[in-house]
Amino acid sequence: MRAELTVEATDGAARVGRLRLARGTVATPLFMPVATRGTVRAVPTHDVEAIGDAAGPVPPVEVLLANTYHLMLRPGADAVAALGGLHRWCGWDRPMLTDSGGYQVFSLEPKVTDEGAAFRSTYDGSAHLLTPELAVEIQEQLGADVQMVLDVCPPLPSSDHVVRAAVERTAAWAARALAARRRVEDQSLFGIVQGGVDVSLRREAAERTVELGFDGYALGGLSVGERRDEMLPAIDAAVALLPTDQPRYLMGVGDPLSIIEAVSRGIDMFDCVLPTRLARHGTLLTDAGRLNITRAEFIRSEEPISATCPCPTCARYPRGYLRHLVSVDEQSAATLCSLHNLTWMSGYIGRIRAAVRSGTLRALRDDVAEVWSGSDPGGARV
Amino acid sequence: MRAELTVEATDGAARVGRLRLARGTVATPLFMPVATRGTVRAVPTHDVEAIGDAAGPVPPVEVLLANTYHLMLRPGADAVAALGGLHRWCGWDRPMLTDSGGYQVFSLEPKVTDEGAAFRSTYDGSAHLLTPELAVEIQEQLGADVQMVLDVCPPLPSSDHVVRAAVERTAAWAARALAARRRVEDQSLFGIVQGGVDVSLRREAAERTVELGFDGYALGGLSVGERRDEMLPAIDAAVALLPTDQPRYLMGVGDPLSIIEAVSRGIDMFDCVLPTRLARHGTLLTDAGRLNITRAEFIRSEEPISATCPCPTCARYPRGYLRHLVSVDEQSAATLCSLHNLTWMSGYIGRIRAAVRSGTLRALRDDVAEVWSGSDPGGARV
Repeated sequence: MRAELTVEATDGAARVGRLRLARGTVATPLFMPVATRGTVRAVPTHDVEAIGDAAGPVPPVEVLLANTYHLMLRPGADAVAALGGLHRWCGWDRPMLTDSGGYQVFSLEPKVTDEGAAFRSTYDGSAHLLTPELAVEIQEQLGADVQMVLDVCPPLPSSDHVVRAAVERTAAWAARALAARRRVEDQSLFGIVQGGVDVSLRREAAERTVELGFDGYALGGLSVGERRDEMLPAIDAAVALLPTDQPRYLMGVGDPLSIIEAVSRGIDMFDCVLPTRLARHGTLLTDAGRLNITRAEFIRSEEPISATCPCPTCARYPRGYLRHLVSVDEQSAATLCSLHNLTWMSGYIGRIRAAVRSGTLRALRDDVAEVWSGSDPGGARV
Repeated sequence: MRAELTVEATDGAARVGRLRLARGTVATPLFMPVATRGTVRAVPTHDVEAIGDAAGPVPPVEVLLANTYHLMLRPGADAVAALGGLHRWCGWDRPMLTDSGGYQVFSLEPKVTDEGAAFRSTYDGSAHLLTPELAVEIQEQLGADVQMVLDVCPPLPSSDHVVRAAVERTAAWAARALAARRRVEDQSLFGIVQGGVDVSLRREAAERTVELGFDGYALGGLSVGERRDEMLPAIDAAVALLPTDQPRYLMGVGDPLSIIEAVSRGIDMFDCVLPTRLARHGTLLTDAGRLNITRAEFIRSEEPISATCPCPTCARYPRGYLRHLVSVDEQSAATLCSLHNLTWMSGYIGRIRAAVRSGTLRALRDDVAEVWSGSDPGGARV
């Protein structure tokens, strides 16, 4: 199923629009919280669903991301399929996307051949071979609205040879994924453009991926150790060659400055563990930057994290209480801080959409850079 | 402030009624979820507040219990007081009760003298002396609706000498707590009856505690290793001597059979970590008994835990999904299972109240015994 993007407004290369997926049409640009093993860490699905309000300044979360690597091992894609697929299994009836598992498998230093990547399970040490065909088969069993091709994702910096080889193998695997897919009526398959930070390789990879023809296009292999000023030209190089009426997804990037820079370059979709991972360490996202709630000064603070935030945490709990929960390692700290960070991220995406519509994205980008330029592009898919 | 109990119906020694506390009047019998360090473990306060419905079969949770021992060490009672007291600090505006900390301190094998109990903090090893006066002072800073006297709580079995000494020292400390208290306008102070499973000592302890005169009465030192058939006569012995127009609180007891046996003997209040502790291990409370969600047979189960339960977990998530979350140790498993168990416990209390009103408590007790007689009295305050 082709993921149609209807552009409603633009500001330079940035665009806001509506993306049609199997389970519904969602607003872009969008940020997907990461539900690696079928749940956003520390936040039950129904609480993610309750974030935001289509009529207010904080839009709802419309797409969740789950991870093929983890779900193929636990509980197994067949178990998820037996319960009616990913949506019914985890209680989320809005669109979902599954990562192919390539990123996780490559972090395990697998034995890679043309056939696929052989690795050992982090759960029980059992041996597995993930091939482009198997990644498709598993993701068709999981049944997300969007599945991703299995790609080769080298760390950065890597030698030219390694990055070039990743582009070649990713292209070969992409063709095999296309040939293997069966579920076309209610599932989209996205190709992944590799190429490191070499703009000519990115261009070549983009051309070859578009030539194969996918329902949407992702940029992979970024936010893996490089500087932001190395990442952005690679995005520019690829985006210039991608179709305008299909979505462009920058995988694993979620720091606020990189998001707005990427939107400014025409990216529509993001995912990142950053909001929830930071939350588990008591680091909160605010309009004034990161706030470390564990600082001693907050012990007696009656203030909420943010007086204007509509999240359940800011509605009720003083900083002093949240600091305590984080300090004594109470599990509800992770839930409350994650709810805030996901809400902040949704509100941030809402501000970006509004800025594109009003032609003020550059001004917002400058404000954001002032607050966030100190932080690294962060990210990492988990 | 005297905790007035208005009895509305009785069935034998059992009674249902309305208990007037500083923050409001609540229905009895009641079960208090344990929010040891200011939060029910894995369940944010606003989620506990959302449990049940005054008009439906599952009544809401009306009283939360927090722990003096933990809060005096982290974040310190002065920090809680600086934020306006326990209720505002943890976001709960219904009544609360604070345990005195005696149970926890005695589990640390403190050096006990007539003055108090000297112990080392489990957080940082620092030395502390908890006296009856300090327990009052701390609890007045915390500002719960109900505070408890510092008592001496021996394990069972203990020698007659140890149990007798605990009764004597508890009585002496109770008198000092009464003399030390200042906050009488919006806080009740409950005495604690010790005496192990020796009915004559229980009687003596009850008489002496009532003679001192408290706003309500608790039975302590039960559910600490003895059998249920040893515990129940001790309850009978004490309850017979307690005022009828004040609440009777059986500390730390929370297994379903012990609760209904104790209600049948005239107990009004309970607290226990059982629902949330079991939940964290994937053990769910159901009308048919305990259900261990980690069993392999549930991997592909589409059923909810209970088709009739109104909790958010049963409304949305299949057993197969919950089993997965528990198996891979996702934090949201604890939240979802705890929400169910707390809802089940609230519904169980609702059934007990209805049975007292309709004079059918004995029949309900027999049904409950059939399902739950295999389980131990469980409990433990944490």
